[in-house]
Amino acid sequence: MAATSFNEMNSADVVAERLTGRGADGPLPRFLVALVEGIHRAVRETRPTPGEWRRAIHFLTEVGHASDDKRQEWVLLSDLLGVTALVEEINSRRPKGATPNTVRGPFYRADAPALPLGASISLDGIGEALNVSGRITDLDGKPVPGATVETWQANAEGFYENQQPDRQPEFNLRGIFRTDGDGAFHYRTIRPAGYAVPGDGPVGRMLGAIGCPLRRPAHLHFIIKADGFETISTHLYDGDDPHLTEDAIFGVKPELIGEFRRAGKQKGWLLDFTFVMVRAKKERRAA
Amino acid sequence: MAATSFNEMNSADVVAERLTGRGADGPLPRFLVALVEGIHRAVRETRPTPGEWRRAIHFLTEVGHASDDKRQEWVLLSDLLGVTALVEEINSRRPKGATPNTVRGPFYRADAPALPLGASISLDGIGEALNVSGRITDLDGKPVPGATVETWQANAEGFYENQQPDRQPEFNLRGIFRTDGDGAFHYRTIRPAGYAVPGDGPVGRMLGAIGCPLRRPAHLHFIIKADGFETISTHLYDGDDPHLTEDAIFGVKPELIGEFRRAGKQKGWLLDFTFVMVRAKKERRAA
Repeated sequence: MAATSFNEMNSADVVAERLTGRGADGPLPRFLVALVEGIHRAVRETRPTPGEWRRAIHFLTEVGHASDDKRQEWVLLSDLLGVTALVEEINSRRPKGATPNTVRGPFYRADAPALPLGASISLDGIGEALNVSGRITDLDGKPVPGATVETWQANAEGFYENQQPDRQPEFNLRGIFRTDGDGAFHYRTIRPAGYAVPGDGPVGRMLGAIGCPLRRPAHLHFIIKADGFETISTHLYDGDDPHLTEDAIFGVKPELIGEFRRAGKQKGWLLDFTFVMVRAKKERRAA
Repeated sequence: MAATSFNEMNSADVVAERLTGRGADGPLPRFLVALVEGIHRAVRETRPTPGEWRRAIHFLTEVGHASDDKRQEWVLLSDLLGVTALVEEINSRRPKGATPNTVRGPFYRADAPALPLGASISLDGIGEALNVSGRITDLDGKPVPGATVETWQANAEGFYENQQPDRQPEFNLRGIFRTDGDGAFHYRTIRPAGYAVPGDGPVGRMLGAIGCPLRRPAHLHFIIKADGFETISTHLYDGDDPHLTEDAIFGVKPELIGEFRRAGKQKGWLLDFTFVMVRAKKERRAA
């Protein structure tokens, strides 16, 4: 009788057979089989008691109840356990020299306003002035004109406008620019602050309780699109931030660290950066 | 810079360092580290796209929203992926010859009535009559008098009374008996039917869609307690059930299969079983 064989050593195989026994194939059964192998191994290695497993179920239940339209504790859990960063890493491997992707985060809005080069995205003017300038090039250093550069960031207190609808103007610190004929862009903003991810939900409470750092170093978000190129979805990090080595969501890469320079006495800060795009696969094959 | 090292191959180690870097130890960080290793490995091996990962997050969100006081989709997920059975397996290893534990399931009620030997637990009399008799012994075959034998079961349609509060009398098919001086007990009931676990929630829909069997073979539940012995929390399965080899929650063990015999023309069924208890660890050490 096949069912007699479930035991501590073969349990994951028995479940895998069940999951695929009727010929199921495809990404979902394959992922479930691999996940079951991982979870059963973790249970075998750490041997939770039934009471500890009930607490694990209780934790999942709490995470579920804390998630709604405005709050996504599952994304937070995936972020803080490095899974989001790993999925991003696997799906956007690029040649050396190209700007890497990193996690997009939960504060993106698709409806940010298009603005002329040189405009300010700081609608309340609060914070230290920052002038951002940059270039978009291909892997050979040739400029990419007409690329869209979408940016969003936290304010000087570390909050995005959609976290503070009553305290920040709508679309504060968001905008979409277009590179000129030299592939260049520039705009004005304020220097963002780092922040802690939400620590008051079940995920933040659990990981905070074991001493896991919940800080994100200060950063600007960018999504850069141009015809015939892979879209870049990434951050630029503030190279001076003391939390740079312990980003809560594992998004920091050395290629994404920006140098914030003093613009001169009382003139705020400058940040200049070159984003390097890779031709989209179809284009590369055709080339 | 330590943060530069997060990549596809070492991601789980980087997260593990984060989870334990501030000296955290104990069951929770150890389990999280093992779980992260398992999840990252599954992601590496099956390479979900960001869209697939978003669907995974969406699934978790749906499972969360489907769980409430009356419905626990997390327990169902843990059951159907064999994790509940594995935790049970790890925590109740017993010497050969002893009756093994198996998962308790979600339909237990702690407030079932104590009844005299020979009583019927079928309060509505619907179904084929079944006479259950049994003995509780220790590993040497010596009877255990005064043990409590708590039992609950589904009805002839495969439903527990707490699933059908409007259709079954309260406490239908539940009762607590006490073994006599010879360690024996007997009571009357009806033969239970097997059933499908809930297939209308996100967990059942997902696993059903890939062809995973959701049936549980017919069974009776027992919790048996006696001073100085390890509590037995188990099932007896109907040896005639065609789904015996594919119990949805991996609870079947060969030692737990009962033989339902005809009592004679129109007299229903007989089930006789001996439960073998193991002395509690403290007692065993003292002995």
